[in-house]
Amino acid sequence: MVVELISVGTEILLGNIVNTNAAYLAEQCASLGLSCYYQGVVGDNAERLQGTLQTALERSDIVILGGGLGPTQDDLTKEVTARVLGLKLVEDAHSRERIREYLETRGFTVTENNWKQALAPEGAVVIDNENGTAPGLIIEKGDKRVILLPGPPNEMRPMFEKSIYPYLNELQPGVIYSKTVKVCGVGESVAETMIKDLIAAQDNPTIATYAKTGEVHLRVTAKAENEKEARKLVKPMVKELKGRFGNSIYTTDTEVTLEKSVIDLLAANHLTVSTAESCTGGLVSARLINVPGASEVFKAGYVSYSNKTKRKLIGVKRSSLEKYGAVSSVVAKEMAKGAAMLSKADVTVSVTGIAGPDGGSEEKPVGLVYIGCQVCGKSAVKEYHFKGNRNKIREASVSAALSLMRECILQYCSSVMFSE
Amino acid sequence: MVVELISVGTEILLGNIVNTNAAYLAEQCASLGLSCYYQGVVGDNAERLQGTLQTALERSDIVILGGGLGPTQDDLTKEVTARVLGLKLVEDAHSRERIREYLETRGFTVTENNWKQALAPEGAVVIDNENGTAPGLIIEKGDKRVILLPGPPNEMRPMFEKSIYPYLNELQPGVIYSKTVKVCGVGESVAETMIKDLIAAQDNPTIATYAKTGEVHLRVTAKAENEKEARKLVKPMVKELKGRFGNSIYTTDTEVTLEKSVIDLLAANHLTVSTAESCTGGLVSARLINVPGASEVFKAGYVSYSNKTKRKLIGVKRSSLEKYGAVSSVVAKEMAKGAAMLSKADVTVSVTGIAGPDGGSEEKPVGLVYIGCQVCGKSAVKEYHFKGNRNKIREASVSAALSLMRECILQYCSSVMFSE
Repeated sequence: MVVELISVGTEILLGNIVNTNAAYLAEQCASLGLSCYYQGVVGDNAERLQGTLQTALERSDIVILGGGLGPTQDDLTKEVTARVLGLKLVEDAHSRERIREYLETRGFTVTENNWKQALAPEGAVVIDNENGTAPGLIIEKGDKRVILLPGPPNEMRPMFEKSIYPYLNELQPGVIYSKTVKVCGVGESVAETMIKDLIAAQDNPTIATYAKTGEVHLRVTAKAENEKEARKLVKPMVKELKGRFGNSIYTTDTEVTLEKSVIDLLAANHLTVSTAESCTGGLVSARLINVPGASEVFKAGYVSYSNKTKRKLIGVKRSSLEKYGAVSSVVAKEMAKGAAMLSKADVTVSVTGIAGPDGGSEEKPVGLVYIGCQVCGKSAVKEYHFKGNRNKIREASVSAALSLMRECILQYCSSVMFSE
Repeated sequence: MVVELISVGTEILLGNIVNTNAAYLAEQCASLGLSCYYQGVVGDNAERLQGTLQTALERSDIVILGGGLGPTQDDLTKEVTARVLGLKLVEDAHSRERIREYLETRGFTVTENNWKQALAPEGAVVIDNENGTAPGLIIEKGDKRVILLPGPPNEMRPMFEKSIYPYLNELQPGVIYSKTVKVCGVGESVAETMIKDLIAAQDNPTIATYAKTGEVHLRVTAKAENEKEARKLVKPMVKELKGRFGNSIYTTDTEVTLEKSVIDLLAANHLTVSTAESCTGGLVSARLINVPGASEVFKAGYVSYSNKTKRKLIGVKRSSLEKYGAVSSVVAKEMAKGAAMLSKADVTVSVTGIAGPDGGSEEKPVGLVYIGCQVCGKSAVKEYHFKGNRNKIREASVSAALSLMRECILQYCSSVMFSE
């Protein structure tokens, strides 16, 4: 089956935002085995949207429209789609109730234009939006299907995963099954070299690599008549990858993030954790605490950005700061040690670095980061050189901190390995 | 004049890469005052590319094609464009020489297919590629213009800036000028309702609203013969918006983020800041510290997730935790007070809430967040009800914390208002 993606929004035509939704949806559709020959972007204009949708319906089986479901006068996607398909818009009582509840519990006043979001074309399947007020819609007309999704990625993605992916999967003959092997602490090109032969020989299953900050995800996908057969094809390849990447694999579970694998590892070993951060400013603790249940293992987070706070808050020695500077292996070690002393946590991690754009020197350039980790009294410090802007350097530092924690726990005091 | 963008590449249709080129080109074209009504993506397929280009030429004055200029058989953009325009491809001696030189000085062997890149449609203007082997092309046919650019951003962007931007600028009468008014602490629907009459009556300048987490951006855009005239059209509308949104406007500078406006406000008033976070886990401190120069005003960040840490780390009373619970107005106030006592910061902000998915009750549902702010001894606590997943609740809490800090500083101890 052929799918076509249409993104609706003047902000995309003006270049105000990068169209990450299209990339996400394209990747998902490809993983479902759907062919995609065209993507389009059109503004919040009824006539042009109508023409674009008509053309798409002539040449594709499924059209996915994203954006333009908001409460404002600019938002036209639903109205135009109903017109093109010859359907009336009617109020969906369930959506109206959800919108009222969503806004009222947030303390927002419900304004008249909000009710526009409760309208749906006759006969459409309404998909609840867990993260906003615009419901998604699935409309079937003859052998064509039109799917309408909200524009904000944090609303669209969960909705797609929960409701649209299973719907599209049902339409397809055969079953696609894939498993993702997540690797941390190994660069993309190294990972690719390690599986060059597997990629060259791939057929069914296929292997695709996806580089994330500080991680590489290897997706093994097989197509077969039923899920059992597809799983059978995927299994030996996953085993082969486990043999090659060993401990660098932190999970093969799509839902498990690097931070969750660290929290799980801590919990399984009955260890507690604290953080001491400088340039990352709290991002390491925030990622750890983003894992539901982190309160069982997380003790305290300290953010010490200035030299004075490094001394006063977590006991870095004045002499170390003077002799080696705040961005140094010695200070990283003292930060991890200080956090352990103060909070009595079993595991502590520290980050100190130069995230730029200013503050770099020839000797200590922007991107130089030291990460320290103390585990059950033993400690390790690693030096990193990250590229990119301030944000990229900070994100790379957070991932590296999580990887290093994992490595140190496994090395120094783990009695429990990761489980699937 | 109307421009249309076509990106050529199967890797975009498969979602392997995000189409950042389209966003870049769209923004550049908008800044040139060109109208863009459509963007398209098509794969490396001659027939579909031909159809897409023909449609674009029927409805737009200028078509910019990106990608598909490489040396392989898959690369078809030039060939298809020449066919659609009825032009022969001929070898460009200058390009042939540049390609040879480019490859040889880098130690690459020139292979036969490289010469394909030296071909150009008859009469085309060839644009040198400073960072690769594929030259760009400008082709004029009747009143239509087709511009071909290489796909890799590091080749395309310098080429666009140096040669294509000036070319397009010459074609245009008049200029576009816009100014963005950034509002915090006001929902999108409320903001839209507040300016409904302005939007209904808009002509030149126009007003567009963009919703961000905890913020709404209002962009005022005017078109005129020159920048001075365009500025003159924008100015009274910005003044009108300032009158309506007052202190909720934190900047009219595109580059200034909410966190930067808070840091600037602190610095202008010679105030220091510390944070005490529970459910946001360090995200408030991380956003503040992401502002270059934040070290001048940021004192310390405390992350106290468990009840025990709230007591031990920042001195929340055991009795308060027992009587009111960790997620309460009283505890938020004590967290802000404790952070002030410990760090001696002038301004402290605290966040305690239930980010979910677990931990909610009927009395205290997921999404309930208390944010406290203490400024020069005076304190305020606000109760919020955020919806969405864990991440969205955390992000909304961070934005609300920044807005509340701004509000409290302005109310309690600011001698300096925001400046532009």
